[in-house]
Amino acid sequence: MTATAKMPRAETAVAEAVAAQRVWVEELFGRLAAGSRGEPGITRDTYGPGEDFGHRLLVEHGKARGLSVSHDLAANTYVTLAGRDSAAPRILMGSHLDSVPHGGNFDGAAGVIAGLVVIEALRALGIEPRCDVTSMGVRAEESVWFQVSYIGSRSALGTLPDGALEARRIDDGRVLAASIDASGGRSESIRRRERHLDPTAIRAFLEIHIEQAPSLVESGLPVAICTGVPGNFRYPDARIVGRHDHVGTPRRFRRDAAMAGAEFAMLLDRIWLEEEAAGFPMAVTLGRFHTDPTVHGLTTVPGSFAFSLDVRAYDPAVLERVEARMLAALPEIEARRRVTFELGARASAAVGPVDPTIVAGLEASAARLGIATMPLGSPASHDSAAFAAAGVPIAMLFVRNEYGSHNPQEAMEIDDFLTACTILADWVAREVA
Amino acid sequence: MTATAKMPRAETAVAEAVAAQRVWVEELFGRLAAGSRGEPGITRDTYGPGEDFGHRLLVEHGKARGLSVSHDLAANTYVTLAGRDSAAPRILMGSHLDSVPHGGNFDGAAGVIAGLVVIEALRALGIEPRCDVTSMGVRAEESVWFQVSYIGSRSALGTLPDGALEARRIDDGRVLAASIDASGGRSESIRRRERHLDPTAIRAFLEIHIEQAPSLVESGLPVAICTGVPGNFRYPDARIVGRHDHVGTPRRFRRDAAMAGAEFAMLLDRIWLEEEAAGFPMAVTLGRFHTDPTVHGLTTVPGSFAFSLDVRAYDPAVLERVEARMLAALPEIEARRRVTFELGARASAAVGPVDPTIVAGLEASAARLGIATMPLGSPASHDSAAFAAAGVPIAMLFVRNEYGSHNPQEAMEIDDFLTACTILADWVAREVA
Repeated sequence: MTATAKMPRAETAVAEAVAAQRVWVEELFGRLAAGSRGEPGITRDTYGPGEDFGHRLLVEHGKARGLSVSHDLAANTYVTLAGRDSAAPRILMGSHLDSVPHGGNFDGAAGVIAGLVVIEALRALGIEPRCDVTSMGVRAEESVWFQVSYIGSRSALGTLPDGALEARRIDDGRVLAASIDASGGRSESIRRRERHLDPTAIRAFLEIHIEQAPSLVESGLPVAICTGVPGNFRYPDARIVGRHDHVGTPRRFRRDAAMAGAEFAMLLDRIWLEEEAAGFPMAVTLGRFHTDPTVHGLTTVPGSFAFSLDVRAYDPAVLERVEARMLAALPEIEARRRVTFELGARASAAVGPVDPTIVAGLEASAARLGIATMPLGSPASHDSAAFAAAGVPIAMLFVRNEYGSHNPQEAMEIDDFLTACTILADWVAREVA
Repeated sequence: MTATAKMPRAETAVAEAVAAQRVWVEELFGRLAAGSRGEPGITRDTYGPGEDFGHRLLVEHGKARGLSVSHDLAANTYVTLAGRDSAAPRILMGSHLDSVPHGGNFDGAAGVIAGLVVIEALRALGIEPRCDVTSMGVRAEESVWFQVSYIGSRSALGTLPDGALEARRIDDGRVLAASIDASGGRSESIRRRERHLDPTAIRAFLEIHIEQAPSLVESGLPVAICTGVPGNFRYPDARIVGRHDHVGTPRRFRRDAAMAGAEFAMLLDRIWLEEEAAGFPMAVTLGRFHTDPTVHGLTTVPGSFAFSLDVRAYDPAVLERVEARMLAALPEIEARRRVTFELGARASAAVGPVDPTIVAGLEASAARLGIATMPLGSPASHDSAAFAAAGVPIAMLFVRNEYGSHNPQEAMEIDDFLTACTILADWVAREVA
C-alpha cells in the first residue's frame, strides 16, 4: 500500500483495517491448501471430499469469529455479519470453493476469503452495517466435474435447469442429486425450484477472483475492475463417428475420426483468428479432444473421437455468428472425411453484464485509495453471471496472478489480494454505513 | 470355383483337394473365434490369453492330424508335414495368431489356417514333398500391444533389435521378455540372438492374408497377388507439451497442446494429399491422438497431448521426403503455438520386396486354374517383410474382405479363402513334387 501517504484519513483507516487481517488470511489459505491437496496442486472436487473440506473450514472460521453460519438447499455456506435491519436487501460477497482437478488454491477460494476480510474490516472500523453482509461459499462452480455450470449459485436462485440434477460426475459417474444430498443439501428442494435467495433481497453480489490470464501481470497492476463476464455455448460431450480400420487402409477407404477432429479444430481456430482480427475477443477450447482409449492404438485408424467444446465471447452476436459458421461447415467435413458428428447436448450461458453503478463506485473507491486499476473483460465465466442472469446487480474485481488458473502454478500475492479487498471494503463500508 | 470346367486335369485335382478341406476349415475358424472373443469382436492379445489360445488350438489340430508340432524361443508354433529330405530348404507358410483389441477373426489367422489347408491338400493329392512343408503360427505381429513390430518372426530369425525385449505392453505394462517366457518362450535366448530359423534353409515364406482395404471388393475379384510390402517410420509415443490454462485464457497467452496436435495432423494430411496427387501412394495414421485423460476437461485448455504416428509408403524416397518435411515444419508449429514436441523413440521398417520368381509362379498357377487375380501393393506391414529383410524369398496372396481389418466387421468369405489356398497349393505342389 505505497499510496497510503496520499490517502485522506477515512481511506487510510480502511486500508489499515484490511491490512490488519493479514495473519489469519495467510493461515486460512494455508489450511485450505493443506486439506485439499491433489498432487500436483489442489483438488477440491465438486460435492466431494475436497469441496466439503473447504466448506467445513469456512464454517469453523465463521463460528470462531462469532458470525452467523448457515447452509442452503445446495449446501452452499453463508457466513454473515448481521445488520441493523435483517429485512433490508443484503450485501452478498463470495465465490466458489471447488476447484478443477489438480488446480490451484486461489481460483474461487480467494473470493470467499475476501468476503470474510471485508466483514472483519467492517468490524475493525466499528461499522454496524445497516443490512446483513455475507460471504458466500458457493458450491459446484467448476463445470469440469458434472459438466453443468453454476450449480451452487443457480440452485440457490432457483434457476438450475431441468435435467441438471441427473448429470453424472465425469470421473466416477456419481449422479449430481445424490452428491448434493451426500454433502448436506436437499436435491428434492432444488428439483421443486424452491429458491433460497430472492434476487430482489440482494443489494449486490460482489466477487473477487484471481485473474485467469496474466493481463495484470502484463500491465504491472495489482487489481482490475471487471467490465463483463463472457457468455458461452458448449458441447460438453461431442463425438465423431467414423470407422476403425487397419493402419494400411488407403485414404479413399478411410473414415478417420481423429483427422476429422483435427480438421474441425483448425476450422474453429481459423474462425477465432478472423473474429479477433475484426476486433471481437473470443476463445475456443477443446478441453477434451481424444481418440477412444479402449480401442485406439498405433496400428488402427481411429474410428471414434470425442471432444468437449467451449466457445466464449462478450458479445451475443459473436457467439451466434461463430456457432452458425461452425454448424454450416460440419457437413463439408463429414462428407470429406466420411464421418458423422454427434454434437450431443448443447449448453449455453448468457453474457453477464456488470452493474455500471457499482463499477463506478468501485472505480471511485480505488481512486480515493490511490490504487491504480484497469478495466478487464473477464476471460472466464463466474457465479456472478448466474446472479446477473437472475437480476442481481453484480461486480467483480480481479487480482493479479502470473500463471493463469486451473493449474497448480497459480501465483497470487497476498499484497495484491489485500489491495483488492481494500477497494471492496471501501465500497461496502460506504454502502452499509 | 466356377472355372473348374475349363481346368486341365491336374488343376482340377488341386482345386478339389482344397475344396475337400472346407468342413474342418470352417470349424477351426469357428473354434478360434469362440475361444478369443473380446466383445465387440476378437481379442487375441500378444503373449496373452487370446494369442495363447490360438497357439493351443494350432497344436491340437496338428497333433490330431498326425503332423509334427514344435515351438521355438519366441513361442512361435510350427506344424510340419515332413519331407523326403529334412535337410532341403523348407517351404514355410503362415502368418500371425494375435489380433488387435476388438479386431476380427481373420487378420493373421487366415494365413496360418491356409498353411494347414495346403498341407492337407498335398496329402490328399498323394504328394510326399521333397522338403518339409510347414505352417507357422507366428507370435506378436500386432505392434499395438508392445509397439514393436514383427516380434515373433524377428525373434525366430535372430533379428529382433536390442531393447525390444524391455518394451512394455501398452495396456497392463507387462515387460515383453517376461511375457514371452510366460507363454513358453525363452527370452534369454532371444536376447543372445540365438536364431531358430536359418534364412538360407528356407526356400520361401508364403503368407495369405485378408485384404485390409476393400480393393478386391471394389474390383470384384477374390484374390490379389502382392506386389510389395510398405516400409514405414513410426513415432509410437510422441507428446506435445504446452500449459494447462483456464478455459477463458486469451489466445495470446495460450499454449494449447491439442490445437498444436490438430495443426500437426493437418500438416501431415496436406503432405499426404500432395504425395498421392504426385503419384506416390502412402498413408498417415495418428492412431492414438489424445488429451491427457487424468487432467483434461471442459474448462481446461489442454497443456499436454499424446499421439502415435505411423507413416507408410512403398518407396523409401517417399518416406524420407515426408519425414523431412514433417520435421522441418515442427519448429513453426512450436513457435506459433508456444508448445514443444517430444517425438520420443523412432522406429522404422524397410520396404519389403516380394520375390519376382515366386510371384510369377503364383500368377502362372492362377492362370492355369482359371482364377482371375490382380496385383496389389500391401497396404499393411506383415511378417513376410521380416522374412524378406532376412533374405528369405517371400510372396503374399490377399483374400477379398469387405470391411477392412483391425475391426470386428472383417468379412472374408470361405469361398474366396479357399480360392487363395488353391493358388498357393498349386504353386507349393509343383515346388515340392
